[in-house]
Amino acid sequence: MYQAPRGTRDFTPEEMQKRQYVEENIRSTFQSFGYQEIQTPTFENLKLFTAKSGETIIDEIYSFTDKGGRDLALRPELTAPVIRFYVDKLQMRPKPLKLFYFGNCYRYDRPQKGRYREFRQAGCEIIGVDTPEAYAELIALSYTILEKLGLKNIQLNIGNLRILDCLFKKYKLTKKQQKYITPLIDKSQYTDLQDALKDFNLSDKNSKEFIEALQLSNINKLQGYIEINGNIEKEISKQKQIMNLLRDSFDIKNYHFKLGIVRGLDYYTDIVFEIEAPELGAEKQLCGGGGYELIRLFGGKETPTAGFAIGFDRTILALETEGYIFPTSRLDAYVIPVNKEMISKSLQIAQQLRKQGCIIDVDLMRRGIGKSLKYANSRNSKKAIIVGPDELKQNSVTIRDMETGEQKLVEIKNILEYIK
Amino acid sequence: MYQAPRGTRDFTPEEMQKRQYVEENIRSTFQSFGYQEIQTPTFENLKLFTAKSGETIIDEIYSFTDKGGRDLALRPELTAPVIRFYVDKLQMRPKPLKLFYFGNCYRYDRPQKGRYREFRQAGCEIIGVDTPEAYAELIALSYTILEKLGLKNIQLNIGNLRILDCLFKKYKLTKKQQKYITPLIDKSQYTDLQDALKDFNLSDKNSKEFIEALQLSNINKLQGYIEINGNIEKEISKQKQIMNLLRDSFDIKNYHFKLGIVRGLDYYTDIVFEIEAPELGAEKQLCGGGGYELIRLFGGKETPTAGFAIGFDRTILALETEGYIFPTSRLDAYVIPVNKEMISKSLQIAQQLRKQGCIIDVDLMRRGIGKSLKYANSRNSKKAIIVGPDELKQNSVTIRDMETGEQKLVEIKNILEYIK
Repeated sequence: MYQAPRGTRDFTPEEMQKRQYVEENIRSTFQSFGYQEIQTPTFENLKLFTAKSGETIIDEIYSFTDKGGRDLALRPELTAPVIRFYVDKLQMRPKPLKLFYFGNCYRYDRPQKGRYREFRQAGCEIIGVDTPEAYAELIALSYTILEKLGLKNIQLNIGNLRILDCLFKKYKLTKKQQKYITPLIDKSQYTDLQDALKDFNLSDKNSKEFIEALQLSNINKLQGYIEINGNIEKEISKQKQIMNLLRDSFDIKNYHFKLGIVRGLDYYTDIVFEIEAPELGAEKQLCGGGGYELIRLFGGKETPTAGFAIGFDRTILALETEGYIFPTSRLDAYVIPVNKEMISKSLQIAQQLRKQGCIIDVDLMRRGIGKSLKYANSRNSKKAIIVGPDELKQNSVTIRDMETGEQKLVEIKNILEYIK
Repeated sequence: MYQAPRGTRDFTPEEMQKRQYVEENIRSTFQSFGYQEIQTPTFENLKLFTAKSGETIIDEIYSFTDKGGRDLALRPELTAPVIRFYVDKLQMRPKPLKLFYFGNCYRYDRPQKGRYREFRQAGCEIIGVDTPEAYAELIALSYTILEKLGLKNIQLNIGNLRILDCLFKKYKLTKKQQKYITPLIDKSQYTDLQDALKDFNLSDKNSKEFIEALQLSNINKLQGYIEINGNIEKEISKQKQIMNLLRDSFDIKNYHFKLGIVRGLDYYTDIVFEIEAPELGAEKQLCGGGGYELIRLFGGKETPTAGFAIGFDRTILALETEGYIFPTSRLDAYVIPVNKEMISKSLQIAQQLRKQGCIIDVDLMRRGIGKSLKYANSRNSKKAIIVGPDELKQNSVTIRDMETGEQKLVEIKNILEYIK
């Protein structure tokens, strides 16, 4: 017997209903913010990803050589392809350029709960602007998407890599040391972080202060931890403006400043943010993004860029954990010919109703009323339309309400009003 | 500079609008016929495709070995994965099972007009029934999908491989000979076919009759060409029933019987059909399908199966060729703060309107009214909302109609009625 490859999934009709709901809902929120949808190929030239993330990424992705000798890779994420597309074909468009997209991504990872080798992401980029209002709108968009999907319990954290860099500099941490502790900061592993800082010869007092600073949630208390002047003063002021706009213009109050947000990726430059569903534990991060630089690396004219990505699987997991009732599609009616002679008329009635916007199925197996009603039930049909010779002589059919069992003789020309 | 891999494409916002229109429209027609959406992975175990199509398919597809030593392949088509999914997880579901899906497929082909290495298909399978009404509904579904998309000039051809086999047998063509001439029949290359038949030692008269039979469009004239009795009589009667149901129940009149439809694939068994857009020349085939056997090959309990696939690219090409006007999404309004102090209020107005269902963008670049109006124009915005200090004192904004240039002072609480 054949099975789906390890780490990949087949989606049943019930699962696809949830995924389609999530996709359509996200699409409409992106559009309401003036974003436009684009799409890039499923695979790219491998060097696109090594240019961005270094050769080590090859260990984590699906790379292969095609029959023409090209080194290709199934995309592990969507930002690099989108910026490649921008540099190649969209640079001349009026700014800001607001782009969104959906796409499957691939990582050669050990499959585990909430992590798959093929997974779907939604994401966006805003290109050509880095004002506080642009960042505020971007962050508000990510929050609005999750809120509009129906999530109740989400938490937005906003950090800033330029301010974090200031903290690194204060304690004279080298680039190599920063790189080592970044994953520990990202995962809030403060005991391990303390050990590392000790190895780097920070005093206990300095180490304690460093870790306190990472956990600050009030931006106004920063001055106790770093020296505030010049560019950093401007950066902090920008951060405050963004947070004020979120509160005042977008009515989002459920956010925290958090210096300890570093994101896993090297190319972020300033503002970074994450949205979590705390109930999900280790898989709590639903969304991550920030400002970054990638255009020049791909040969384009540098211009500000920011964006975020939302994971489908965790978002659905979060909705399920909150007990969210996903909308389900039902059959409006199941049409049952009582004998062979009624088939043609039954198909015709079904087709007419479909043309009028109804969701209609019809018995194609000639299995009689009892079994057909059972099938209609299994398909969660609202009504059954029974087409028999006696009724047909009166240009009528019997409509049965599948919930109450009530039956009614209805003229064919009036069926629609009994169905919709 | 980095580019998309050869034979793949990036889709601009304008192209994505067309593709999204096509996808949503097709989805809703599938659903109206009681079909349910599923999805399978982008890659499969290579042996799934070699089991179905033989080792030679490896030359035409993207196959690769993953880091765990598994032989994988980017799917070249969707039927094999769907039947694998069915055998693995859906066999116990009530019959008939009506499944539809969208998916990107991959072929290592020489790129040419209307043919890409990554291409999108829509498709469906109906599992568990092979009555004439089931086939008629399936064929009507494919036709309805293309008709509902807005195509005017399409032609449906319906063949039957069992009847074709009868013709092959009459002239004592071996399996090997059949295999050789199948592509010639498929592409209506009758001169080449004639040469081949001559090589197979058919007399000129027999060869002429054979080719005439392939071109028959009236099923009632078949008896002049093959001996009709027993099973073939039943098959012809079924074919006629299907065509009558198409005409009488589904109101589809634009179809022909065509014995020369063989489809490129080995696994079809009886009814086969194609829908063409004659204006497209060599790329005219939009849809192809039929009844086939695949379940037993994949280890499942044999049950009737039929389905079809529709290609996105050619369908869009056909709509464009007919001059179809695709729906476009426009901004309802572009909000312009006249100075820095108006930014917060402008964002707030934008967000409120989005919550009420509008598509709203806002100036994030502080570029003044003139440039902002120009940008609003480039985005095809219906209205501009100008937020200035004097108007704000009266709790109002200026709304400009971007088509007429007319401006009006409107209270903030009343904006919605001027926008929608």
